[in-house]
Amino acid sequence: MIFSNIELDKSKPIYIQIKQYISDMISRGLVPNNSKLPSTRELSRILNISRNSVVLAYEELKSDGLIYSVNGKGTFVNSKKSISSTPWHIDWDGTENNYSKIANKLDIVKNEIPWSSDVISFKSISPDGELFDIDELKKSFLNRISIEGHKLLNYGYAKGYKPLIDYLLNYMNKKGVDTCNKDILITNGFTEGFDLILSSFINPGDYIICENPTHNTAIKIMRAKGINIIGVDINENGLDFNMLKKKLDLYKNKIKFSYITPSYHNPTGIVMDPDDRYKFYNLMKENNIAVIEDGFNEELLYSSSHIFPICSLDNLNNGVLYIGSFSKILFPGIRIGWILADKNVINKLESVKRCKNIHSSFLDQGILYDYLSNGGFDKYVKKIRKFYGDKFNFAHECVKKYIPNKYILGDGGLHIFIKLKNIDSRELLRKCYKKGVIFMPGDIFFVDESGYDTLRLGFSRLSTESIENGINIIGSVIKQMEDI
Amino acid sequence: MIFSNIELDKSKPIYIQIKQYISDMISRGLVPNNSKLPSTRELSRILNISRNSVVLAYEELKSDGLIYSVNGKGTFVNSKKSISSTPWHIDWDGTENNYSKIANKLDIVKNEIPWSSDVISFKSISPDGELFDIDELKKSFLNRISIEGHKLLNYGYAKGYKPLIDYLLNYMNKKGVDTCNKDILITNGFTEGFDLILSSFINPGDYIICENPTHNTAIKIMRAKGINIIGVDINENGLDFNMLKKKLDLYKNKIKFSYITPSYHNPTGIVMDPDDRYKFYNLMKENNIAVIEDGFNEELLYSSSHIFPICSLDNLNNGVLYIGSFSKILFPGIRIGWILADKNVINKLESVKRCKNIHSSFLDQGILYDYLSNGGFDKYVKKIRKFYGDKFNFAHECVKKYIPNKYILGDGGLHIFIKLKNIDSRELLRKCYKKGVIFMPGDIFFVDESGYDTLRLGFSRLSTESIENGINIIGSVIKQMEDI
Repeated sequence: MIFSNIELDKSKPIYIQIKQYISDMISRGLVPNNSKLPSTRELSRILNISRNSVVLAYEELKSDGLIYSVNGKGTFVNSKKSISSTPWHIDWDGTENNYSKIANKLDIVKNEIPWSSDVISFKSISPDGELFDIDELKKSFLNRISIEGHKLLNYGYAKGYKPLIDYLLNYMNKKGVDTCNKDILITNGFTEGFDLILSSFINPGDYIICENPTHNTAIKIMRAKGINIIGVDINENGLDFNMLKKKLDLYKNKIKFSYITPSYHNPTGIVMDPDDRYKFYNLMKENNIAVIEDGFNEELLYSSSHIFPICSLDNLNNGVLYIGSFSKILFPGIRIGWILADKNVINKLESVKRCKNIHSSFLDQGILYDYLSNGGFDKYVKKIRKFYGDKFNFAHECVKKYIPNKYILGDGGLHIFIKLKNIDSRELLRKCYKKGVIFMPGDIFFVDESGYDTLRLGFSRLSTESIENGINIIGSVIKQMEDI
Repeated sequence: MIFSNIELDKSKPIYIQIKQYISDMISRGLVPNNSKLPSTRELSRILNISRNSVVLAYEELKSDGLIYSVNGKGTFVNSKKSISSTPWHIDWDGTENNYSKIANKLDIVKNEIPWSSDVISFKSISPDGELFDIDELKKSFLNRISIEGHKLLNYGYAKGYKPLIDYLLNYMNKKGVDTCNKDILITNGFTEGFDLILSSFINPGDYIICENPTHNTAIKIMRAKGINIIGVDINENGLDFNMLKKKLDLYKNKIKFSYITPSYHNPTGIVMDPDDRYKFYNLMKENNIAVIEDGFNEELLYSSSHIFPICSLDNLNNGVLYIGSFSKILFPGIRIGWILADKNVINKLESVKRCKNIHSSFLDQGILYDYLSNGGFDKYVKKIRKFYGDKFNFAHECVKKYIPNKYILGDGGLHIFIKLKNIDSRELLRKCYKKGVIFMPGDIFFVDESGYDTLRLGFSRLSTESIENGINIIGSVIKQMEDI
């Protein structure tokens, strides 16, 4: 605030000093032309002087032509040191590069029907915020900040907050991962983890093989980076290994990475069984294709058996880059995830991370570490497993009861995937929207033109009543469409 | 933890149930070969059973050949469902792309002499953590979390936390910026802001004009993105406008952006005077070159007059993209910065941000908003202006007294820039390191091969005693070098 330290001499008239100060500033070019002055009320408050003095000063400056007022808008500077008044308009649409164009075009927040409070929305798979254990988090904040507040609030390290890294190495170890040649980099959630890996190891035109359908954000990132995406179908029998083998032959020695979500796959909700995890890993190893494993919602494994991540098969090899994230179910707002990979890979990613945003918030990392190591997460996971498990079962029953379908996928998680019988889910969405129900059309998860007859229902933030009403409405609209 | 929910039947021997459970898991392929089992102590604790039962179960499993122990390391699975034991080694050095190579090569954290507690280090320009007002921050956290904790901890918006955006629009307005066609995107500090802009509007081979020397992180980002950097000298007279005009002619219609730090320029500490700000803006406008203005430490303007940012000259035009950051002086650990630019530009950057990391921590944004709007920042800035101002003056006196130089640059801030008389600052650094003093050699800030005889001294975290001792040592080493 440029007027906050005018020094006033009490022996001279205040309004004259104010006038003099402002006129000096203008003539020295210190306030730009057409910039707005504080209101008389504001300036009198700032300087702790009577408003009349300011009004008087402004009046004189106006009659000198140094400032002018616009009704209802305020008072502005009329400086001679003006910049040329010819307008300058850069054509940003024409300047934007391809990456930005694709990132904008595939941004579902901008392109899909927005949420509003009067619709039943099955679009979101965000966790229910009411389940967050705010009191535990408060304790963690107060504890951590009193132990090392000055440290957490100052610059940290690109790799992350050491105690959190050690905690996560141990956490991955308990999942059966041999971490002795592995290291961890803390990221801003899965999205940054995936972006960092591709930013460091991919060139435009490279090939990545992945499940089809798969996580739409991953598709967006790959497309924006000019990657050739090879999809392998996933259906009621899980991943189509025959198709996988065919594509591996077809693109022999061309594919650099595979991207896979073995647990509660988004959008299908399928959990890959142990035999398939071995099979998949061995195929990637034989073909020398590095695996990017998305640990998406692995912590939610409530309805299936205990299952090891694919990276636990990698032992002393260096072929699997695992991306973990608590941010999907714990506190998405603080955006903490991690990459577990070979030490050499993490070393490279560390510099790339530093080149992009220095490091992730150390305050958030400190709070999260405290929360995790005090057992807060274990308590929370027990609570939500039951909560979301019950919701999944209820939603699943409703879908079976109300929605005519070719098949329903999902072993649990926060969503259910439905393949309809030849019904266009975009048309269905338009009709359901009119009746106050929205969901995620399945086509956004597909890497080719298929999936027009699929949809994903996220139920994590809906009451059982809304789940049943909403699914009932979707079902009745489908039946109307079938009748036509 | 895969063993945490074995269900035990109290009517049967516990050790037999444990043995059966583990052997089932192994034969079903649910625990990978060579993965580590919990210790007997750990498992007995988890299941709340006697350790003897676990010891017995493990003994039997060993004699069955299903598990094996390694002295001092633990007990491991010996599964038949094993993955092939041939090693798999991906050549990550060969896979790394050019971007990662440059980000790694220019990573000063990896390449410069590291800080250690027994040296006087003039390398850092981090703020002094002891000045942070932790109690105010605690209040802000507790206040904000009680008002809307559930919201701040769940998914937010790529653009940022609305109250913080509104606060910053108003804040920029008070600096004289007409914000009516402008908008704000919250970023993870300056670094992400700069990366986002270049990621969206630059293609490899494009030209950017900037001060020489300039911020080394900006140089690194530009180089990693394959940008042609055109440097314009900055010296004891400030920016060399003659050189600027010559380069603008030479590269007519080729240059897409200029990058400029008008206040406490890093590394020189120079504050550009108002006339030069007009001149610079008008030149960019005439040549249709968009300006990226780095608001670096603008809040520290303690020793010079009130000065407007260049973006305040842009009014209804769309040519200036301003990157602001409190993270340099306030709480670097939480990494909150912002871009103020034309609404259309922010709209594009919003989708690119979403494509890279969804959004910046909403918890941090909420805390910062609360802290700022409760006046915490104003109090803090008053305190640190005096503190760092005194330190700057003291350090400046010491440099004049002890260090033979061609010229000293700096109008204030957290650092001083020195041009030596033909002394190689890398050689100086090696000699000073032996005497327990380190600093930042100036060459890393130059976009060409010059600057070998310059250095930057950061003093923000040093006591006056260390400042004087350190500068005295540097001076005496220089004198020895001159004598040779």
